[in-house]
Amino acid sequence: MSRPPLIAPAALDAARAWLGEERQPERVARVAWSVLIEPGDRVAGERIARLGAAGALDGLAEAARGGDRELAQAVDRWRSRWDPALVTAAIAEGARREMRLLVPGDAAWPEAFDVLGPHAPVALWVRGDPAALVGAATIGMVGARAATPYGEHVAADIAGDLAAGGATIVSGAAYGIDGAAHRAALSAGGRTVAFVAGGADRVYPAGHANLFAQIAETGAVIAECPPGTTPTRWRFLARNRLIAAVSDATIVVEAGARSGSINTASHAASLGRPLGAVPGPVTSSTSAGCHRVLREYDAVCVTSADDVRELIGAAGEPSLPAYESAEAVRVADALSRRVPRDVDAIARRSGLAPADVIATLGLLGLQGTAEAQPDGWVSTV
Amino acid sequence: MSRPPLIAPAALDAARAWLGEERQPERVARVAWSVLIEPGDRVAGERIARLGAAGALDGLAEAARGGDRELAQAVDRWRSRWDPALVTAAIAEGARREMRLLVPGDAAWPEAFDVLGPHAPVALWVRGDPAALVGAATIGMVGARAATPYGEHVAADIAGDLAAGGATIVSGAAYGIDGAAHRAALSAGGRTVAFVAGGADRVYPAGHANLFAQIAETGAVIAECPPGTTPTRWRFLARNRLIAAVSDATIVVEAGARSGSINTASHAASLGRPLGAVPGPVTSSTSAGCHRVLREYDAVCVTSADDVRELIGAAGEPSLPAYESAEAVRVADALSRRVPRDVDAIARRSGLAPADVIATLGLLGLQGTAEAQPDGWVSTV
Repeated sequence: MSRPPLIAPAALDAARAWLGEERQPERVARVAWSVLIEPGDRVAGERIARLGAAGALDGLAEAARGGDRELAQAVDRWRSRWDPALVTAAIAEGARREMRLLVPGDAAWPEAFDVLGPHAPVALWVRGDPAALVGAATIGMVGARAATPYGEHVAADIAGDLAAGGATIVSGAAYGIDGAAHRAALSAGGRTVAFVAGGADRVYPAGHANLFAQIAETGAVIAECPPGTTPTRWRFLARNRLIAAVSDATIVVEAGARSGSINTASHAASLGRPLGAVPGPVTSSTSAGCHRVLREYDAVCVTSADDVRELIGAAGEPSLPAYESAEAVRVADALSRRVPRDVDAIARRSGLAPADVIATLGLLGLQGTAEAQPDGWVSTV
Repeated sequence: MSRPPLIAPAALDAARAWLGEERQPERVARVAWSVLIEPGDRVAGERIARLGAAGALDGLAEAARGGDRELAQAVDRWRSRWDPALVTAAIAEGARREMRLLVPGDAAWPEAFDVLGPHAPVALWVRGDPAALVGAATIGMVGARAATPYGEHVAADIAGDLAAGGATIVSGAAYGIDGAAHRAALSAGGRTVAFVAGGADRVYPAGHANLFAQIAETGAVIAECPPGTTPTRWRFLARNRLIAAVSDATIVVEAGARSGSINTASHAASLGRPLGAVPGPVTSSTSAGCHRVLREYDAVCVTSADDVRELIGAAGEPSLPAYESAEAVRVADALSRRVPRDVDAIARRSGLAPADVIATLGLLGLQGTAEAQPDGWVSTV
């Protein structure tokens, strides 16, 4: 663009103090990109993948004038934020708030975001432990802000159980289901991560100020927008894709028919990530979204932490119920508790051959559900 | 078998009076088979398919002695019921109770049973309208005997709606969900059919005597066992396959984790019939079976009669929600209700190019969700 370089000397100075020297040009360029674009900008993502973040900033205006129509349109939408002061301010604010900046290539960068391709975040701004997403299984739990006591109870139950078992609970820090999931993970002494739609410095909703602080203490509050960014509807939708992408499974606990959680579920489904939904009464409008997700996105019906573990393949071998044989059912049906019956009578009632009746009676006898008496067999159950 | 012919002259006389002359040998032979075997006997089914019901009765003992080991075993299990008096009594009782006998080839025989292959019923004993399963869509609704008010409410709601729309509600006449479904269909002036595990003359449970009479008045009570047969666990399990096979879709409304309805669902799934389950609170043990069916049998989550209609492909085109464009969301996010903003400010806030902002504002203006004022645009919502 025919403007001053986006990265001013002041920004480089601030960045050196904050970010250190390692791969600094790339890090600062990613800060600049995160200032410039809205989350998930495909044209930016593709250009960065090709040229690196720093290289992608160079020669934008020329490339746009050179006939790349898509890039020209992109430059048009980036132009209004091409302001070195914004980049310098973002860096200063990140430093002042003691955030950590994560960029692809960092050990703690979640490789799960690769699935987003050119829509992956250009950088993550982290309050708390930047390695909070490393190692453990991550379970996204999302749902209605206006949750019912039922929904909050189930969310807390499942999240607490999973967190106690070592999983990291990922959610969006909203009222309702999100809050219940985060809190249950904290109460269980587990780790939880909040992905937020605005800057990681913004406390939204305001009533969750303490919760944000607690989450950041052991886990992390993570944003892809720079500090100071207002959460908007678009950014909530974009944030949802991060939860879906980073989670080994995403669970919708309670959601109205048009809840934002359905958007998260839709991301998880289209990314091919395991997706679960907790059912509720069909008479509850707050479960309608879960039922929609079960029906339309082919989600798995989840009723417990075990179901979630099974969903991510972390369960042991499922214990199969010990089915009785057809013969056992039919012979047991033919027995009385009081009237002893001989093999012929049992054969007639059960429609089985006498030889099979005798063999089956032997099994039922061993099982203790049938007993031989002088006049024939009786049921003991 | 080395016994007297199973069909005595007395049986033929009684049958002539009751069943008429049409295809009589076949009909009487099928009565005999329904006396001889337990429901779903594969060896009988295969032999009847090959030789016809009458032909299949002939030469059994010789065939068994001739080295057909499977048939020899079958003859062993049929032997205890090889009694002409039983066949004559079944015919007399069918006539006395004014039942109708349905056999394959009859116009009212449900072709849906073909899917059961050699496990199909050999005949059906009908109290009521033998054509009750002809024509309309048939919906199987099954569930817990110990249903909750929630389950009975939802069963009645869905069954009543479907029956009012012309569907035939098929169930098992048990207490709980079955009863609620039958009753709702009757109340809606619709048709309902009960498949029972014992003889069609047996009222089980006894408390449903009135319900049986009402069902038979406009619909039908149907058994594959001859009159007088006691319902047993085995016959309940066998009956379940008939509900699954005859229904265009089977819906489990409420069921404990080990409910018999899960067996019906399993039949529907293995027969490839559409299968639905109504979810409920995960804290309710009476919904655990539904959730299991959703999870393990890949049932569709059903919350309303519309969902059931969709399941059998009877719905009209689904009305898709009118999704907004990403640009519309982002521009709307950038608007204030009170502070007018110009295109540049909106471009900066939304991260969109000014040209796109202008185009999108035009759309929002037409939609009535944004309004141009002298100093810029405001949101009206």
